[in-house]
Amino acid sequence: MKKYKRNQRVGALMKIFTERPNHVFSYNYFSELFNAAKSTISEDIVIVRELVSDLGFGRIETIAGAAGGVIYIPSLSEQDTAGLLSELCLAFSNPNRIIPGGYIYMTDIFNSPYYSSNIAKIIASKYSSKEIDYVVTVETKGIPVALMTARELDVPLAVIRRNSKVTEGSTLSINYVSGSTRKIESMTLSRRAVKEGSKVLVVDDFMKGGGTAKGMIDLMAEFNAEVVGVSVVISTAEHKDKLVKDYNTLLVLEGVDEIEKAIKIRPYDQENTDI
Amino acid sequence: MKKYKRNQRVGALMKIFTERPNHVFSYNYFSELFNAAKSTISEDIVIVRELVSDLGFGRIETIAGAAGGVIYIPSLSEQDTAGLLSELCLAFSNPNRIIPGGYIYMTDIFNSPYYSSNIAKIIASKYSSKEIDYVVTVETKGIPVALMTARELDVPLAVIRRNSKVTEGSTLSINYVSGSTRKIESMTLSRRAVKEGSKVLVVDDFMKGGGTAKGMIDLMAEFNAEVVGVSVVISTAEHKDKLVKDYNTLLVLEGVDEIEKAIKIRPYDQENTDI
Repeated sequence: MKKYKRNQRVGALMKIFTERPNHVFSYNYFSELFNAAKSTISEDIVIVRELVSDLGFGRIETIAGAAGGVIYIPSLSEQDTAGLLSELCLAFSNPNRIIPGGYIYMTDIFNSPYYSSNIAKIIASKYSSKEIDYVVTVETKGIPVALMTARELDVPLAVIRRNSKVTEGSTLSINYVSGSTRKIESMTLSRRAVKEGSKVLVVDDFMKGGGTAKGMIDLMAEFNAEVVGVSVVISTAEHKDKLVKDYNTLLVLEGVDEIEKAIKIRPYDQENTDI
Repeated sequence: MKKYKRNQRVGALMKIFTERPNHVFSYNYFSELFNAAKSTISEDIVIVRELVSDLGFGRIETIAGAAGGVIYIPSLSEQDTAGLLSELCLAFSNPNRIIPGGYIYMTDIFNSPYYSSNIAKIIASKYSSKEIDYVVTVETKGIPVALMTARELDVPLAVIRRNSKVTEGSTLSINYVSGSTRKIESMTLSRRAVKEGSKVLVVDDFMKGGGTAKGMIDLMAEFNAEVVGVSVVISTAEHKDKLVKDYNTLLVLEGVDEIEKAIKIRPYDQENTDI
């Protein structure tokens, strides 16, 4: 069986931790993977812990006990977060995105692996101290950001459907009222998707009236699941009285001027909570 | 400005390459990031290239010229691929997944960041020699695998919708016939989602009759896009004469026995192309 040198093991550990943040890896796992003694792995981890901390990537923690092991908890500096948010504002505010009717074409950004994973890093970093069992979203545009957030948090994703499908098995459904259009819509989720008593983080791309988010919260109540947070990428300044009060947003869409061809969007300022 | 030591830069490079495989990073980018001379970065890259190669993670390539830089091209060994495929077969064949009517609940696996990113690694490794501009899928269940594949290939994802949405701008739509149920369905994609003349990889979760895949190929023809591959996670042994002939599948579903509570699923054997 192949033996590895220390710098090789350290390089491999950096890759493995990066690929699965917030996952507890046992010392046995690394010991078998590298064909090395646990004491050797412990020394490697000390080096990686220092590296990760010096580089500002977050922290490596050791968890004692039978279910113990090593976990990489990423963090984003305020400076990095601000940089990503400005980059997103720049991307979303391109006037070519304006669609007749004052809508904005955003799908390419939400579907981009690059943007969705960066958005997910910001969202996940807000909840790193909370215990979360699932990320929950509703089809379709929010799925990439929600999946990447679930990846950051190392938890499963549950996707609520607009209609019941035979491949979902038995489902729970609710009707809800759209916050902006006042139309009655329905959403449905497989009973297998979320275990009773779970803690969930609700993630979506866009919030206008808040009806969809409220629908998701109501549906989670049917699963006896506790919603520990609601996080959206963009919320509108319009419809200030949203149906959901307690939520996080990364950006605030202030308005679209079809005549002047201008989109006004800015990072949400936590100091000045006026949306 | 902070200066980093060699082992710190090597660790950071491992993380950066892992987070964005198949992306060309310029030497300037690393030079500014680490506040180090390009000659220093070149030496770092030599070390990382050796590490990546020794560990069997793939290869690091240097691209000359104005648009040049450094790129990490991951690879999966046959052994790793076989291991991941057995793990997937085991997950999919759990008899608790059987739904009345002979269907299988698979959504949790497709929505899992862990499984979808491993599936994506296998799919992407099959196309690493091809030039691909977009990954294309159709909502909803295939989105996570398609997104993770797009992430591996560092290209955008385009998601075909079942219905036209106002936030998609002008769209192209087609009708198609489901290969298994013979029902007429429609699919629609924003004209902004795929540029004319692009090369696309079609990715989906499941293929039965092949009608949906054929629909996606037909829709891509409307965009004057070239389909360089069709890749599904599971195809059925039933409906042997699929509407699409040229496709890759990771697994073959041989059948579901509701009485015996058994799901027969196996890796697709490229030596024995009989599905």
